[in-house]
Amino acid sequence: MNNTKQRIRIGMVGGGQGAFIGNVHRIAMRISDRYSLEAACFSSDPQRAAASAQELGVPAERGYPDYQTMARIEAARQDGIRAVVIVTPNHLHFPIAKCFLEYGIHVICDKPLTMTGAETAELIALSQRMDKHLFVTYNYTGYPMIREARERVRRGDLGEIRIIQVEYSQDWLATALEQSGQKQASWRTDPKQAGAAGCLGDIGVHAFNLAHFVSGMTPTKIAADLHSFVPGRVLDDHAQVLMRYANGARGTLLSSQVAVGKENHLRLQIFGDKGALDWCQEHPNQLSFSTLDGATQILSRARHQISQASRDVSLIPAGHPEGYLEAFSVLYKEFAHILAMPFGAYAEGNSATAHSAMPAYSDLCFIEACIASSTKDTVWTELKANLP
Amino acid sequence: MNNTKQRIRIGMVGGGQGAFIGNVHRIAMRISDRYSLEAACFSSDPQRAAASAQELGVPAERGYPDYQTMARIEAARQDGIRAVVIVTPNHLHFPIAKCFLEYGIHVICDKPLTMTGAETAELIALSQRMDKHLFVTYNYTGYPMIREARERVRRGDLGEIRIIQVEYSQDWLATALEQSGQKQASWRTDPKQAGAAGCLGDIGVHAFNLAHFVSGMTPTKIAADLHSFVPGRVLDDHAQVLMRYANGARGTLLSSQVAVGKENHLRLQIFGDKGALDWCQEHPNQLSFSTLDGATQILSRARHQISQASRDVSLIPAGHPEGYLEAFSVLYKEFAHILAMPFGAYAEGNSATAHSAMPAYSDLCFIEACIASSTKDTVWTELKANLP
Amino acid sequence: MNNTKQRIRIGMVGGGQGAFIGNVHRIAMRISDRYSLEAACFSSDPQRAAASAQELGVPAERGYPDYQTMARIEAARQDGIRAVVIVTPNHLHFPIAKCFLEYGIHVICDKPLTMTGAETAELIALSQRMDKHLFVTYNYTGYPMIREARERVRRGDLGEIRIIQVEYSQDWLATALEQSGQKQASWRTDPKQAGAAGCLGDIGVHAFNLAHFVSGMTPTKIAADLHSFVPGRVLDDHAQVLMRYANGARGTLLSSQVAVGKENHLRLQIFGDKGALDWCQEHPNQLSFSTLDGATQILSRARHQISQASRDVSLIPAGHPEGYLEAFSVLYKEFAHILAMPFGAYAEGNSATAHSAMPAYSDLCFIEACIASSTKDTVWTELKANLP
Amino acid sequence: MNNTKQRIRIGMVGGGQGAFIGNVHRIAMRISDRYSLEAACFSSDPQRAAASAQELGVPAERGYPDYQTMARIEAARQDGIRAVVIVTPNHLHFPIAKCFLEYGIHVICDKPLTMTGAETAELIALSQRMDKHLFVTYNYTGYPMIREARERVRRGDLGEIRIIQVEYSQDWLATALEQSGQKQASWRTDPKQAGAAGCLGDIGVHAFNLAHFVSGMTPTKIAADLHSFVPGRVLDDHAQVLMRYANGARGTLLSSQVAVGKENHLRLQIFGDKGALDWCQEHPNQLSFSTLDGATQILSRARHQISQASRDVSLIPAGHPEGYLEAFSVLYKEFAHILAMPFGAYAEGNSATAHSAMPAYSDLCFIEACIASSTKDTVWTELKANLP
Repeated sequence: MNNTKQRIRIGMVGGGQGAFIGNVHRIAMRISDRYSLEAACFSSDPQRAAASAQELGVPAERGYPDYQTMARIEAARQDGIRAVVIVTPNHLHFPIAKCFLEYGIHVICDKPLTMTGAETAELIALSQRMDKHLFVTYNYTGYPMIREARERVRRGDLGEIRIIQVEYSQDWLATALEQSGQKQASWRTDPKQAGAAGCLGDIGVHAFNLAHFVSGMTPTKIAADLHSFVPGRVLDDHAQVLMRYANGARGTLLSSQVAVGKENHLRLQIFGDKGALDWCQEHPNQLSFSTLDGATQILSRARHQISQASRDVSLIPAGHPEGYLEAFSVLYKEFAHILAMPFGAYAEGNSATAHSAMPAYSDLCFIEACIASSTKDTVWTELKANLP
Repeated sequence: MNNTKQRIRIGMVGGGQGAFIGNVHRIAMRISDRYSLEAACFSSDPQRAAASAQELGVPAERGYPDYQTMARIEAARQDGIRAVVIVTPNHLHFPIAKCFLEYGIHVICDKPLTMTGAETAELIALSQRMDKHLFVTYNYTGYPMIREARERVRRGDLGEIRIIQVEYSQDWLATALEQSGQKQASWRTDPKQAGAAGCLGDIGVHAFNLAHFVSGMTPTKIAADLHSFVPGRVLDDHAQVLMRYANGARGTLLSSQVAVGKENHLRLQIFGDKGALDWCQEHPNQLSFSTLDGATQILSRARHQISQASRDVSLIPAGHPEGYLEAFSVLYKEFAHILAMPFGAYAEGNSATAHSAMPAYSDLCFIEACIASSTKDTVWTELKANLP
Repeated sequence: MNNTKQRIRIGMVGGGQGAFIGNVHRIAMRISDRYSLEAACFSSDPQRAAASAQELGVPAERGYPDYQTMARIEAARQDGIRAVVIVTPNHLHFPIAKCFLEYGIHVICDKPLTMTGAETAELIALSQRMDKHLFVTYNYTGYPMIREARERVRRGDLGEIRIIQVEYSQDWLATALEQSGQKQASWRTDPKQAGAAGCLGDIGVHAFNLAHFVSGMTPTKIAADLHSFVPGRVLDDHAQVLMRYANGARGTLLSSQVAVGKENHLRLQIFGDKGALDWCQEHPNQLSFSTLDGATQILSRARHQISQASRDVSLIPAGHPEGYLEAFSVLYKEFAHILAMPFGAYAEGNSATAHSAMPAYSDLCFIEACIASSTKDTVWTELKANLP
Repeated sequence: MNNTKQRIRIGMVGGGQGAFIGNVHRIAMRISDRYSLEAACFSSDPQRAAASAQELGVPAERGYPDYQTMARIEAARQDGIRAVVIVTPNHLHFPIAKCFLEYGIHVICDKPLTMTGAETAELIALSQRMDKHLFVTYNYTGYPMIREARERVRRGDLGEIRIIQVEYSQDWLATALEQSGQKQASWRTDPKQAGAAGCLGDIGVHAFNLAHFVSGMTPTKIAADLHSFVPGRVLDDHAQVLMRYANGARGTLLSSQVAVGKENHLRLQIFGDKGALDWCQEHPNQLSFSTLDGATQILSRARHQISQASRDVSLIPAGHPEGYLEAFSVLYKEFAHILAMPFGAYAEGNSATAHSAMPAYSDLCFIEACIASSTKDTVWTELKANLP
């Protein structure tokens, strides 16, 4: 709220007036109280960029008309930004991230990081060469009860994991909204801007990432049936995926943007041979926990029997609901914590996978495998496990 | 409760002391108030059969030691049974049903009707030749809110159906219970008594049947991944199935008996291009209904905006919960209604598919297709649509 | 379902065609499988009485035109009824019960037992003099999870009880339904047939009884505000009552028949200094249980950690919902159990208070105290504790 | 996040390290993005005050050791604060608010505004004399679905209101936590710091205020039973209140801090003669809405059929949960909006009652009436309606 406290100077590309996710990132940063937004290229349209800068309190001279200029000038300033947040449509993530990394500026990027696994691999290599961080905002991993879920898997409360069911369903694309010119719908259904996957790339990867984050497991192969229900739509708006894991576990991933009645129904269920978990983003402060011979428990954020790992990311006491923005801010708080250390000093701990770009690579491999499987009539397809 | 009212004389095979489902059938018949249990062969063990007969009020001379004798003598009696209820382990359904039909006695059989599609086809042909009914107790179809769901699909409230998600999960076989000698677990996990499918045959077919009953749609092909988690178990205890329908709709069927925390979690969601439904057996008196642009409604049994088709099968007014036994009794009431007509006179109406054996044939074809698909690495496999 | 098994010969007064609660009693008896309905006086209108008898399978000669004749003749028959079920409007309960008791026939009566505490006291004295039972069907006490709740209070899981909150709300009388001639509404809003209380007598006493049944505690004084919202209605359709208990505990009882959106919202919460319970009739198979330092548990009927007292009254295994009729049948099963013993031999055990008429006396005292308090501007009013 | 945008210079009294509510106010202000925290007196302990100032980014010279000095110096500075946030224990609200108002600084105060109605009346008069605002943070009024509820009452969707049931229950004081030295518990149970009411003043007034905010109605008289369960505790930890309204409506207010299992269970139900509402703070993004003849609807924040009044205070699209902090920030955004106008120019509109101090006066009158009633054995007691 003021500048006397040391905050990280940060810039933003994308996210101007009328954008949804750019505003979310800004609120999340403010909640974390660790950033100062100093520069931006809010839009590819110079007038909108300037208007947004003024509205959002970025000085005119640091409201840049293009990201290349921004990166160059900011890198040269004594008081230049240390990190940049990228919140453009998907297809621009790669060139922008590449540009800022090359100028030695840390990158915080909305998911999916790039359009292909190869691009992601290239960015990861670049970030390591430059000793600069490359963070991807898998925001659902910031929910305290997701941290609780993860902790319970880690410490063995569920035993050996047998089944993972994850779903992310919405209904806002149940009609051909993109044909009405609605901006969010237009780019998300356009292969040139969104990439090779529609629903799967937009929300399915969040589900995939969350299942991995909590379980610590990545499927070794998948069998996918992607489908597009709305006439005229090129990319998938519904995806059904079977998954198999190295230890024999089975899984399903459902992702739909035509599921009437669903808002942001992200739900994760994990069943082990001793216990099971159930969490749903629409009521994120609760986590249902079952065991073989006990009554199902409704665990509540920051309350009885909640682990330190979960408490650490709670902002307020139990009983008062936290939401989406709070979870988002957790990531920003953790980014700030890592940025305060020398590069490489961050030991992989509880929240590590949220903050490296490896899950982003895994995501892209998942998307590519799903498309390959679906194209070949749902044949089981292996997931690449390692960077090339 | 007494005999002055005209009731249908009925017999039972299986379901003696200690059996679960036999008792359920008897209570359901009593609720319907249309049957009088006159004869039985409660067990293959003559002593247990006799003891059960005495306990359950069947005269000693009509408590038979074997079903063949029972069928022969009852068929010959002036006051012999008109119908028999078969509640034995699965492998005995076929010979018993065949025997009673051949003696001209109507058959009411627990699901699955037989061990193979071929057997079911044979029984159907026999029943038609004999002008005798062959009913299968798909009990979940008797819930009033399932009738409401069906009615709403029928009258177009959901529009064109796009997605069907159905799940039936339990956890009682999460450990090797069958190795402890528990009777219910033993026969259900033994291929000789249960058939080629475990979990899928025991509960998965209920899910399959319910999705069909409500949607009126049968998938044209499926891709299945069956798995057995518990060491030493031969039959599947977890099944994940992708489904495709003729109109392009997609579906998933999940069925598990190792899903810790699940009791009898039978849930059906159907999404159309205009509306969507969500129903769960654990709270059967509610039905969630969503439309493209309205708030989700919680419909309640026998209350506002509930169709006549649903009201017809409600026993008591709104607000007082009905349960599993009431739903079961609905089938028995409907069987009695049909049995009161000349054979063939029953016009296929609202509840028709619950009462012909065709869904049972479809079930067996589904099981066989799932096993075939799973054996061939989840390849898409066509479902037989018609009797041979 | 048939007569070879020994069943209790029973009669019914009231409950003919179109009646709600009579049918409920009959189904409950059939589920229990312990009764044979042999005689009845279904209606004060002889034609309706005869038609009902025929429809319900009561022989014409035992379908009586008036209850006095019925009592006299049945008492004289060798095979006469041993017990009678009274399901008439409230104002007739007393003379009918009195008549049958005097003829030496056990009485099972719907609640409220009579119109005044004095009448109830008289019936209780009469029943004891005659060595005949006088049962009142507080049906909600038959729910297995209510038995679980009671057991947990008894064994001290909640510690010292501090707070009791009980509510029974409906909305079916939110408009002047009685003015449309609807029969159920008409007698319930008519002081001559319903008694001095409307909503409070119809459903509030169920709440009062349930709180007592589970907690084992009766308030020593109450302060009530009764109100009638619907113009032209004489009796209360909304009641708010504060309660104080001997141990210092506080309580509230809310009862309304104008609470739009409520069907049969009977909910009981009990808070002790160690634990707390929450149960709602609309989802009767679950019971929420909390402790001072643990996560809230969702206990499920017949499942893990459920007491024997609760299991004893479960009809079917966990996961399959039981409902209102099953709970009702539990009472009939227990009545039959008691009727099988010599009078007085029944030791007061787990379900005792459900089966003596003492709670009925307590109910009437509660109603009378509420009316007295409400009339005197909500003054604290003592409850009579003992029979005169 | 930075200073180029025009923000309101604000100060804070109380809320230093370890305080709960001070941090909440700061986060809420950051979310609103309209304030810059420039000065503070974080603690009465000068060392803690200084340490807090440093930690929270307030310049050392504006981290004051006492509030009088702060008010005097800030009032004199060219760049002094325009408003102050008071987040101390209750008994200090009055002198601090008085001091700042006298120096011409707007006041934003946590509830309850003062210890007595007389003090509140005095502050209100002072604020009007000084042309300075006096805001009280009834934070629950900021929830978008509370705004929706209010809008629906206003536009007549519920018809004439008949019943208001409001409850705020917690369990954190179920044991004698104050005897352990826990700071939050200590001052809240101490009459000198908390005032004459315990639970009622701490959370009961939130319930009272919320019921008023949504319904637009204030009871004309109340009858209260306050009680203290925990041995040694002087102030009430449990309150049960009956309410009567001018139009004949009835209400209940329950407030408890010993209700085991309750976290922050603030629930409001309003029943009219046409419709009814049900909202619970633990799932604040939903609002249940019922009508006389329709199915209950689950309204969802920012989604279908949500009014503009509610959308105006939503931060993010539907489906992503907002929580307590977002609701809090809504108030700060509205305070900023009003502070941007000339004093007196703010027309009483949709959210008006949240922002004047009149509800705070009403609250104090309610507390005083409850104590008076409870002392006189729950006698009906009138609420003062107007400022003296």
